[in-house]
Amino acid sequence: MQIRTKDDYVKSLKEQGHTVYYNGERVQDITTHPAFIPHINAASKTYEMALAPEFEDLATAVSHLTGERINRFTHIHQTVEDLIKKVQLLRAIAHETGSCFQRCVGWDALNATYMTTYDIDEKFGTSYHTRFTEYLKMIQSTNKMVVGGMTDTKGDRSKPPHQQADPDLFTHVVERREDGIIISGNKAHQTGAANSHEILIMPTQLMREADKDYALCCAVPLSSPGVLQIFGRQTNDERKFGGRTDAGNPDFGLVGGETLIVFDNVFVPWERVFMCGEHEFSGLLVERFATLHRQNYGGCKGGVSDIIIGATALAAEMQGSAGASHVKDKLAEMMHLTETIYSGSISCSAMGRKTPSGAFYPDPLLANCTKQNVTRHIYEIARLAHDVAGGILATMPFENDLKSKEIGKYVEKYLAGVPGVSTENRIRILRLIENMTGGTALVESMHGAGSPQTQKVMYGRLSKLDMKKKMAKKLAGIEDEPSQV
Amino acid sequence: MQIRTKDDYVKSLKEQGHTVYYNGERVQDITTHPAFIPHINAASKTYEMALAPEFEDLATAVSHLTGERINRFTHIHQTVEDLIKKVQLLRAIAHETGSCFQRCVGWDALNATYMTTYDIDEKFGTSYHTRFTEYLKMIQSTNKMVVGGMTDTKGDRSKPPHQQADPDLFTHVVERREDGIIISGNKAHQTGAANSHEILIMPTQLMREADKDYALCCAVPLSSPGVLQIFGRQTNDERKFGGRTDAGNPDFGLVGGETLIVFDNVFVPWERVFMCGEHEFSGLLVERFATLHRQNYGGCKGGVSDIIIGATALAAEMQGSAGASHVKDKLAEMMHLTETIYSGSISCSAMGRKTPSGAFYPDPLLANCTKQNVTRHIYEIARLAHDVAGGILATMPFENDLKSKEIGKYVEKYLAGVPGVSTENRIRILRLIENMTGGTALVESMHGAGSPQTQKVMYGRLSKLDMKKKMAKKLAGIEDEPSQV
Amino acid sequence: MQIRTKDDYVKSLKEQGHTVYYNGERVQDITTHPAFIPHINAASKTYEMALAPEFEDLATAVSHLTGERINRFTHIHQTVEDLIKKVQLLRAIAHETGSCFQRCVGWDALNATYMTTYDIDEKFGTSYHTRFTEYLKMIQSTNKMVVGGMTDTKGDRSKPPHQQADPDLFTHVVERREDGIIISGNKAHQTGAANSHEILIMPTQLMREADKDYALCCAVPLSSPGVLQIFGRQTNDERKFGGRTDAGNPDFGLVGGETLIVFDNVFVPWERVFMCGEHEFSGLLVERFATLHRQNYGGCKGGVSDIIIGATALAAEMQGSAGASHVKDKLAEMMHLTETIYSGSISCSAMGRKTPSGAFYPDPLLANCTKQNVTRHIYEIARLAHDVAGGILATMPFENDLKSKEIGKYVEKYLAGVPGVSTENRIRILRLIENMTGGTALVESMHGAGSPQTQKVMYGRLSKLDMKKKMAKKLAGIEDEPSQV
Amino acid sequence: MQIRTKDDYVKSLKEQGHTVYYNGERVQDITTHPAFIPHINAASKTYEMALAPEFEDLATAVSHLTGERINRFTHIHQTVEDLIKKVQLLRAIAHETGSCFQRCVGWDALNATYMTTYDIDEKFGTSYHTRFTEYLKMIQSTNKMVVGGMTDTKGDRSKPPHQQADPDLFTHVVERREDGIIISGNKAHQTGAANSHEILIMPTQLMREADKDYALCCAVPLSSPGVLQIFGRQTNDERKFGGRTDAGNPDFGLVGGETLIVFDNVFVPWERVFMCGEHEFSGLLVERFATLHRQNYGGCKGGVSDIIIGATALAAEMQGSAGASHVKDKLAEMMHLTETIYSGSISCSAMGRKTPSGAFYPDPLLANCTKQNVTRHIYEIARLAHDVAGGILATMPFENDLKSKEIGKYVEKYLAGVPGVSTENRIRILRLIENMTGGTALVESMHGAGSPQTQKVMYGRLSKLDMKKKMAKKLAGIEDEPSQV
Repeated sequence: MQIRTKDDYVKSLKEQGHTVYYNGERVQDITTHPAFIPHINAASKTYEMALAPEFEDLATAVSHLTGERINRFTHIHQTVEDLIKKVQLLRAIAHETGSCFQRCVGWDALNATYMTTYDIDEKFGTSYHTRFTEYLKMIQSTNKMVVGGMTDTKGDRSKPPHQQADPDLFTHVVERREDGIIISGNKAHQTGAANSHEILIMPTQLMREADKDYALCCAVPLSSPGVLQIFGRQTNDERKFGGRTDAGNPDFGLVGGETLIVFDNVFVPWERVFMCGEHEFSGLLVERFATLHRQNYGGCKGGVSDIIIGATALAAEMQGSAGASHVKDKLAEMMHLTETIYSGSISCSAMGRKTPSGAFYPDPLLANCTKQNVTRHIYEIARLAHDVAGGILATMPFENDLKSKEIGKYVEKYLAGVPGVSTENRIRILRLIENMTGGTALVESMHGAGSPQTQKVMYGRLSKLDMKKKMAKKLAGIEDEPSQV
Repeated sequence: MQIRTKDDYVKSLKEQGHTVYYNGERVQDITTHPAFIPHINAASKTYEMALAPEFEDLATAVSHLTGERINRFTHIHQTVEDLIKKVQLLRAIAHETGSCFQRCVGWDALNATYMTTYDIDEKFGTSYHTRFTEYLKMIQSTNKMVVGGMTDTKGDRSKPPHQQADPDLFTHVVERREDGIIISGNKAHQTGAANSHEILIMPTQLMREADKDYALCCAVPLSSPGVLQIFGRQTNDERKFGGRTDAGNPDFGLVGGETLIVFDNVFVPWERVFMCGEHEFSGLLVERFATLHRQNYGGCKGGVSDIIIGATALAAEMQGSAGASHVKDKLAEMMHLTETIYSGSISCSAMGRKTPSGAFYPDPLLANCTKQNVTRHIYEIARLAHDVAGGILATMPFENDLKSKEIGKYVEKYLAGVPGVSTENRIRILRLIENMTGGTALVESMHGAGSPQTQKVMYGRLSKLDMKKKMAKKLAGIEDEPSQV
Repeated sequence: MQIRTKDDYVKSLKEQGHTVYYNGERVQDITTHPAFIPHINAASKTYEMALAPEFEDLATAVSHLTGERINRFTHIHQTVEDLIKKVQLLRAIAHETGSCFQRCVGWDALNATYMTTYDIDEKFGTSYHTRFTEYLKMIQSTNKMVVGGMTDTKGDRSKPPHQQADPDLFTHVVERREDGIIISGNKAHQTGAANSHEILIMPTQLMREADKDYALCCAVPLSSPGVLQIFGRQTNDERKFGGRTDAGNPDFGLVGGETLIVFDNVFVPWERVFMCGEHEFSGLLVERFATLHRQNYGGCKGGVSDIIIGATALAAEMQGSAGASHVKDKLAEMMHLTETIYSGSISCSAMGRKTPSGAFYPDPLLANCTKQNVTRHIYEIARLAHDVAGGILATMPFENDLKSKEIGKYVEKYLAGVPGVSTENRIRILRLIENMTGGTALVESMHGAGSPQTQKVMYGRLSKLDMKKKMAKKLAGIEDEPSQV
Repeated sequence: MQIRTKDDYVKSLKEQGHTVYYNGERVQDITTHPAFIPHINAASKTYEMALAPEFEDLATAVSHLTGERINRFTHIHQTVEDLIKKVQLLRAIAHETGSCFQRCVGWDALNATYMTTYDIDEKFGTSYHTRFTEYLKMIQSTNKMVVGGMTDTKGDRSKPPHQQADPDLFTHVVERREDGIIISGNKAHQTGAANSHEILIMPTQLMREADKDYALCCAVPLSSPGVLQIFGRQTNDERKFGGRTDAGNPDFGLVGGETLIVFDNVFVPWERVFMCGEHEFSGLLVERFATLHRQNYGGCKGGVSDIIIGATALAAEMQGSAGASHVKDKLAEMMHLTETIYSGSISCSAMGRKTPSGAFYPDPLLANCTKQNVTRHIYEIARLAHDVAGGILATMPFENDLKSKEIGKYVEKYLAGVPGVSTENRIRILRLIENMTGGTALVESMHGAGSPQTQKVMYGRLSKLDMKKKMAKKLAGIEDEPSQV
């Protein structure tokens, strides 16, 4: 059955019976739990927009496998235009949600695995790509939500998997059987996993020979026996349990809603295994997933920043400071930073190339550059929003104070801004800014798609330093320098 | 009776019967309410350290009025050394609390009012300074906690007080009577007010003739009829209601704990009135308070940043990344930014001057410069802490997950770092970082002691641009340029 | 006759007899004058690369007017691909020259005028576009070098043209005659003008009705009577007159070589006049030229920065510090900043659109964003280059010291780096860094294609703030706010 | 004989007969050579201001050795006040010169050597301190100018002295004789050395046992046989040879005027040797010199920045843009950065401590912090100056164009700003900005008193990370963590 509407999606989650814990308790039905509804709403937008005529071009695509029109989040990019539409789509959905809508992670995992299984088969004569293509067809036709399982908790960062005190700190093959494999381990920071159907597991880093068992790529239904998820605690998460004002962005989640997924001796049949020991390709798969994921951040974070800019401008207007030249300058700076990250995403898409598999792949250097800017600019955008919005952001009374019979009148009276703006609306805008510029939201832009240092390291590899040195020597008139320099 | 110990202080709060609202409800006893205990603990440190022999020199002083040894937080600075000790004391207490301990605001209000009442009396022959000296003696001998009442909510920022739709958006005199005055209005962002005894009200900005009634300085017990307070909502405040791990900094408050104070026709006897209509001195009083308060920020925020640095270094060690060169470099950068703000506070103190009243006053240009750097560097320190600590900061499970019989073992197992570190301790350090680098904490460093633009504006006034232009002309060999340039 | 080779180009300059002053003297032949040769060499690359087979695709194009293969610097962009090739071409030539090669200014002027004359004709029924197309055909077939004449000196910046003390501070029509017009005024900062053939004059800013005579666009041969040029003084320009080592980049110019062009009652026949009084289109022409020119800066400056990165890496290797982690990190940061500006240029090209004239036009918001980043990042790249290269950059002896019989041995001995690198080569690399990161080079990246504030202002106009505000309100749950906010 | 006046100083230089090369030629008399006069003028200010009554308090001091009033540049700091006056003096002289006045380097060397010889004698029973005190008395009474000889050229940075291909790449003892020692080697970047009398040689870095011969401190007259100097090439140095307008700052030097000093088997009698093999103290001497020198940079560079700010404000006024809000904001930012570096210098002085020798020493952590900020802020100040001053900074005609009979009228006419300002004066101000924000001036603020990385490294050593970690653990409630973390 194909998931088309939000209702279909919610129903599918209700029925699948996967194991999710929240605050020490197993959640019986995430679709009715206030901690999960906002995240489900956000992910639902990826279904809803595909049905909206004005977004059809962005939110759907034609499958190169079946010729059917499919949800773009299950599409393998076939052209540079596809890559650009991806970025535009992400910005457009972020305009609707003001938060992460989670589904790009799985999309990137599908594309990275598609490209890389092709290359493994070319090298080793395996049949991973054929298997994977079948799996992909199923995803495209059912429109299931897939989480991309990249990051393991990793334990002691200074050691490779096989030297860890506990072998499960990285996900690995525990047993090879005739019908499939048994895996154990974990995936952390799994955005949207609580409300997904499938996880596509990839290795978390380049693996060496000694870590062969960790060179693993496979797909697992999240309702499989042995899989359980623990939901992370977010900034101000409990505000969602109260009224709509203090929640800031009441209908949608704060960033993506991440879980720690535990795999406790989980069985995976061979037709769902797409890499198993070919460690030579582990680095390539990681790099491709990372590039595809870094490509996104100027799109979705660009869209999220648009909301922050709009809210900040409103906050200034509501308190009568919008005419000040320093306020205009700070808004312009926020726009500048937003367009800087967006232009990173567009440029790496425009410079995309075809891989041997036929799938298109963004320019890795420029995708890298995009994400690195996101780790800086989102913080600065938040800082400027705080600057313009004022100290009130940190000291506003509770929603219940505003509603109180005794003191509601005081809150109403004293938090008034310019005439004609209701105090409640002013508070709502300020709470929206607070929601979007606080702890979890910032950390996500720092570490999602790889920590800053992982990007810094890529420059050494991707930026053709030798060519640059050669050109500099030529201009300086140096002709015969010995080879070591 | 003099408040000496923490117990004295808590008892005094329990007894004073002031009106405080939290989340729509009146709080019967703040000293037993989990939202207030951490803030009371922080303020208590200002009493406790004055009793600790090793801090006697910093935390106490000899009153220039009575010759008695008093709590330094009630002292009028008599020397440059006093100014420097102020900064050192603030950094030392922040090391104990990791958060705001609130009491500097009132201290700065006492000093600013002391200096300025002297000048008003010199000009107008009034007796405000004598009155204020009596009030100050009472504060010094009782060791009461005073909140400095500076910021009004201000309504429409583009308009002066008398043009506001509601006259109470700024605090003002409603009636002058023989025995005293009646005032109405509000003070917002009142750090520590919920657990203070007194408020020393000052005008929120320079007032013109038309706003004479707003040129008001007076002291009001917070238990006075007509005074009520509404506590602000802070980032993750409700975590304090649960276990100790997720609270991050379980014993102390997140920033200061701010209230909105409402004055609804409150009577103030003349002996507690220190400015009433002398608008010519309103700007000076504001500027002096602001300078004295800006002086602090490299002290207390320097101390708070020391804790963030320590916690970040621990987080890196616990996950095995402390040896990476980029981690060392980021820690060094955090130290650099911390010492930069601290050196601002020290330098404005070292360049302090005696005012006509005899009280010492920090260099306003350098105090201004200090606060401006705080509005930038604290955000960057937080950003670097997030970078080093890792994405786990945003996705960690709940304390109850760790304690759960069913899944506690998984949290224990998968959030393990290097061998020998307990998972619980690792989580505690990460939660401490989260606590200190999130929303409210950042906003406080942006807007406390004046928003960034208020500092930018001061450069034009304090930085002697004419002298700089003259020197430049001389060096350029320009001798006879007409006066307009 | 068509200019094809460098020789053709040099000969054409020698023959055209235009008036250029250098250091107070009229230059008889710029093609043999050491101050001009490096700039001629740089511009020559735009001719030479069009003849090199490996650059044919980038450096030439097919004219949409004639179907002939032409030098791309005379081409009107017909597709998004053309826009992207423009950026790639600029980076490629900068790799050859390490400096400005000047010819993009005229190219942008040709494109902006092409688009805008079309729109003027549509509105007013004039025939400017037809005239201009004829002019363009001539330029395409002769391959002449055109300078884009945008910036006037402007006198008192706080006043429009007609209020200036001297009407000539902005270029304007002095007299309308039957066969043409007489113009007077000036154009400043004219990159490459000394070695160009033609100037295409455009208005320097949006003109109002009262400044109609300043709404002027026309083409003038630089050898016309009444036209004279004064060459600007550049950083260390005189080093080019000595040996090759201290010049840094001995064969090519430092930035573009700018002149002040004076028009002293110059006659322009009507067929070379493309706007004359239609002030309603002055702003559009300026904005289009600015956008097309801002598009370039991530290309050419990206290429120039590649050389700086290469030279800095060599400097580190030559002194044995290339292995230090902080050096690697700084090089990675330089690469990051370089790719950030490049990705701006690529993205505004990829998002380009067709104008009514048929010519393609880059996205103005993203082009704006690109240039704004250039005004910051080039300085930071220079700062990092200085950091890595070391203090020696500022204290190296003269080339003549190295060559001196008496003391050359000391320079040789003491400026030695790692074994195997000659001291002379080390000095050459350091001088190249000095050359590329000094005064004039920095200022050019600040003000070329518009000063930073001109970009900041554009954000307010181009960034759809109203839409952002609407989206924020929706998310915050605000439905009925009155219109003023 | 005591040098008191500028004339005395110039005469002493003329007579001393030291060997200086400029551009490959030996300079017969530096006091009449245009490359040296500006630097001599700047250094002369240190003599002249000591004679000016209004500067007596800052520019002179009372010798703790003799009780005589001496030039402060020869004084050993006896109090915190002395440390603060040092900083104030440096800012005051920079206001007169707009450039480096060179004499602080030797002053810092005198103080560092004074402190450290005391400690060596305490440890080893040597008599270096007594010897040095005699030498110091001579310097105080003659008022000779001493250059502090710190930095060697160092060859291959990845290797210690004894592993270099050439032993002379670091200065060392070649032979120990009964009456003294023979030394060979070099000192680079020697600010003011061309116009100094003496050099006080110190080791360039911490030396190990194997590099004992490089653990050398001694004083050498610059006129000694075997000593020769080669002057460095500076940005636009040759402009000083022409008229006064284009020179920018016509009377004073661009930064300090640095030489490479060569020691070719120079004899030093024992009474001038202050460390010879005590490598255990080499690191301490270097660190003390570095701290004392880093202390300065907020003083002198603060003063220099004041001139840049004044000139930038004038440039804006002269072109009618001073009223723009972005210009005011940029000037305020320049002031902010200037006061930030100044407050660093003040704070490390205010936190200064007495050393065992009795001499006062600035706080090393805060001095370090000051210099690190200088390496960033001076570049940003230059960038903002370029922004406000405009593109004209890079394209102005030559002074000879302005003076030309033929075209002077055009320069006059077209570079006019607001009415009432002469074009020549406008050019002079712009040339002053150009002079102060170009290549050499920037590099000096990067590398003087140690490259940025040398400061970064100090944070790890000075910033008490262990204490910070302990405090963080306490707040997080961690009690029993094992020792390794």
